[in-house]
Amino acid sequence: MNPDSLKDLIRAAVAFRDERDWAQFHNPKELAISLAVESAELLQLMQWHKGKGLERVIDEKRAHLQDELADVLFSVLLLADELKIDLGAAFLDKLAKTGEKYPVDKSKGSPKKYTEL
Amino acid sequence: MNPDSLKDLIRAAVAFRDERDWAQFHNPKELAISLAVESAELLQLMQWHKGKGLERVIDEKRAHLQDELADVLFSVLLLADELKIDLGAAFLDKLAKTGEKYPVDKSKGSPKKYTEL
Amino acid sequence: MNPDSLKDLIRAAVAFRDERDWAQFHNPKELAISLAVESAELLQLMQWHKGKGLERVIDEKRAHLQDELADVLFSVLLLADELKIDLGAAFLDKLAKTGEKYPVDKSKGSPKKYTEL
Amino acid sequence: MNPDSLKDLIRAAVAFRDERDWAQFHNPKELAISLAVESAELLQLMQWHKGKGLERVIDEKRAHLQDELADVLFSVLLLADELKIDLGAAFLDKLAKTGEKYPVDKSKGSPKKYTEL
Repeated sequence: MNPDSLKDLIRAAVAFRDERDWAQFHNPKELAISLAVESAELLQLMQWHKGKGLERVIDEKRAHLQDELADVLFSVLLLADELKIDLGAAFLDKLAKTGEKYPVDKSKGSPKKYTEL
Repeated sequence: MNPDSLKDLIRAAVAFRDERDWAQFHNPKELAISLAVESAELLQLMQWHKGKGLERVIDEKRAHLQDELADVLFSVLLLADELKIDLGAAFLDKLAKTGEKYPVDKSKGSPKKYTEL
Repeated sequence: MNPDSLKDLIRAAVAFRDERDWAQFHNPKELAISLAVESAELLQLMQWHKGKGLERVIDEKRAHLQDELADVLFSVLLLADELKIDLGAAFLDKLAKTGEKYPVDKSKGSPKKYTEL
Repeated sequence: MNPDSLKDLIRAAVAFRDERDWAQFHNPKELAISLAVESAELLQLMQWHKGKGLERVIDEKRAHLQDELADVLFSVLLLADELKIDLGAAFLDKLAKTGEKYPVDKSKGSPKKYTEL
């Protein structure tokens, strides 16, 4: 088991699911719901805070933020398995496409959406 | 560059961000917003559909689903970098904790939350 | 105070906020975050369930669902106030626009997005 | 039709749905998905922006923000109908409960969650 290998992490997530016979609940739509729910939990930890107060909250809740991010990754890994997506390759492929939408010379230092560049 | 290595993917995401000078927009809170937004886009592709209709939609929109999942992973990777989280280790650590909340004998075949087991 | 009047409910929400001096945290972006977080909490109550199990969950958690929906409405009302939107009029206006995107003869009985009709 | 009356707006939303025979897609879980998706669309309009840039974006996109908020309200109204919730009464009831969790003397001027007060 190599913790840096996406494929190994997917295998760990799938084994965890199968030990509990949870595949029956885990269709892609339910996993996408889970992803939305876990993402909101991560966001909630920083809700209402800004500036110095936000920095302090991030510092104090680092362990909690880490756990929520791990929960998000759990759903991502199971979705990749369920949809038979080669996650690493899909990521690099999409990064190249996003790079075309946001060419460096146009998007550098701008928070605008590509449709507004 | 090994597409199966989380650390390599994080390096690719960070390089992409830095070429565009986007770190200034990417604090953990904004990245968590991004994660929530991208997750909702993934979910939206399957909205209103169920049963056979859902299966067909998943089949027809596989490339789109893959792109949205890659966008979600992009935010996950940048959050890990921003929060200095060792993502693979954090995942396995959280999986162990979740395993304690959901022991196999109690959670097998059940969709209940651990607080209701 | 008329509980059926949107304007009265907005006044109640604003009074509640001002008693606590919370306007300083409530810019439209934070309120939109809040809306996303509260919506996810509502969704989470029904996560993983379907068919008869879902019906049972909805029955058992009716009071909780009601509270989460009220929390969602709280953010909606404050956003309307913050953005100076006449909520009832905005709703009817948007309903008319959506009606043009989804004409009855094309959209009847279909779960498709208007771009796919 | 009184645009300030929640009950009238619910009737309008239900009529719109029934003309299109959409009740078959609109169980509470799908409507909660819709709420999460629409909330994320509202949030997305303000993504990556802060300070003066955020104020400008809110100004420029006011009509779009208004439409997204109306879409959110559409899901709220249909959920209230579907779950047979008296929305105005539920809101005031929840506001009273939240007031107990956040007493004025403890929560005034604080962005903390009630569990941290």
